[in-house]
Amino acid sequence: MFERLGLIGCGLMGGSFALAARRAGLVQRVAGHSKSPASAHRAHELGVIDEVADSAAQAAAGADLVLLAVPVAATEATLRAIRPALRPDALILDVGSTKADVAAAARRALGDQARQFVPCHPITGREVAGVEHADANLYRGTQVIVTPTDDTQVARVERTVALWRALGCHVVELSPEAHDAALAAVSHLPHLLAFAFMNGLLAQPDGGRSLALAGPGFRDFTRIAAGDPSLWRDVLLANRDEVGAQLRHFQQALTEFEQALAAGRADALEPLIRRASAARAAWGGPAIAR
Amino acid sequence: MFERLGLIGCGLMGGSFALAARRAGLVQRVAGHSKSPASAHRAHELGVIDEVADSAAQAAAGADLVLLAVPVAATEATLRAIRPALRPDALILDVGSTKADVAAAARRALGDQARQFVPCHPITGREVAGVEHADANLYRGTQVIVTPTDDTQVARVERTVALWRALGCHVVELSPEAHDAALAAVSHLPHLLAFAFMNGLLAQPDGGRSLALAGPGFRDFTRIAAGDPSLWRDVLLANRDEVGAQLRHFQQALTEFEQALAAGRADALEPLIRRASAARAAWGGPAIAR
Repeated sequence: MFERLGLIGCGLMGGSFALAARRAGLVQRVAGHSKSPASAHRAHELGVIDEVADSAAQAAAGADLVLLAVPVAATEATLRAIRPALRPDALILDVGSTKADVAAAARRALGDQARQFVPCHPITGREVAGVEHADANLYRGTQVIVTPTDDTQVARVERTVALWRALGCHVVELSPEAHDAALAAVSHLPHLLAFAFMNGLLAQPDGGRSLALAGPGFRDFTRIAAGDPSLWRDVLLANRDEVGAQLRHFQQALTEFEQALAAGRADALEPLIRRASAARAAWGGPAIAR
Repeated sequence: MFERLGLIGCGLMGGSFALAARRAGLVQRVAGHSKSPASAHRAHELGVIDEVADSAAQAAAGADLVLLAVPVAATEATLRAIRPALRPDALILDVGSTKADVAAAARRALGDQARQFVPCHPITGREVAGVEHADANLYRGTQVIVTPTDDTQVARVERTVALWRALGCHVVELSPEAHDAALAAVSHLPHLLAFAFMNGLLAQPDGGRSLALAGPGFRDFTRIAAGDPSLWRDVLLANRDEVGAQLRHFQQALTEFEQALAAGRADALEPLIRRASAARAAWGGPAIAR
């Protein structure tokens, strides 16, 4: 399907994409670049990429598929850097967790060539970073949200959808704005709450003792709090308006609980819990089970 | 070790205890009572108990080990009901998620016989209820917090510790008050936040559409929101002072995030995330891996 993948960012997400695409027979050769040369060399040693590129532009040069797997805040600078090297027939994708800012960055950085760029967000990840954890199955069975804009060429959207499907993904198409609103609700706010929860615990002198008594509920609730700090810094800032709106919904719901607790009213508290519990029990899980 | 277990509450926790205790050779015969007769009969059909008792008192009569596995708010009434039937040498345990209220209920309901009662909290559970899910391995490898009071007889505390250890548990001894403060921090507040998060999502017209896009982070963060409504109603109410104190710590930590986001300050946001992420990554997990 593609001759040459130019991979920019040889970490968990980029490395896993390279492994999966190669296994599926979608790419023949992979040139990789990372901001940290050690990462790209490690990716080469592990056989994740075929050659190390000294710059993002060098990775993109000659590639008919370019994947950006960099922090979302680095999107614009990366696209500017590769623009002169881009083949006119290249398809450019990203895997960032926010989309309106990425689409805007592509418009600014690529101009007319923004038609070559299809913003994507595969809803997957790990709480570990680095190419050492790259996994050819990371994308299999997950949802990928593809968010074309008015600039995006339709034929490229179709190729992108086919590409993700060939990796075993379920593809959903949304506008960048609808994506960011939905992800603020189901991903970005939970991360913010988990981070704040951990810090609230750490601020207490007894926090360490309490942590030692934590069980499986704590383990799962806080798993996402171990997320990569620079990645989540960028996501929360890029999507802060939507995250703020979600936070207000959360605070309103929390206030109902506080009022029922303050009044000691079991009859008011139970329906609130029942609502949450029934909805969570009815949730069907990520669209495709892994 | 014991001739006869009087099991009051034949649900997930009680049924699993009966299975585990029998498998470990700790009890010879099990008489079970449930508020719902259907539950006790189901437990009997499944071989979890040997005989169905028509009342809590009947289950306790003749038992040298009595386990209360009922909602914490039902502790006092249950202990009052069984008091006349208790053998003077019986050891009485519970498995409730709060301890100061349970210890106080025992003092009120049992008087002098409160010396026979050792409050316990095994830190385990499932998001499914009922004896159908009873599992002889539910307690294996988990922590059990034993919270004797000044009333509790020391020899009975020692037998209790030995009993849990024989089931493969790691036992920690704390005062009921220290237990409630620690569990508010690492269990009760996370449940409250997960419930409120779900309700904040459900209050939005687009909530259902967003839910369909949720991934593995959401799955783990909200798993505890599916908890049993009547159980969690009781826990949150019984421990509402400590939960309220924890909520204030959380809100303070959340405010720091909000200020950094509102100011658009990456340099202020990143250290906040880094603190949470490092602590969660360093957490060793529940004391004993399951």
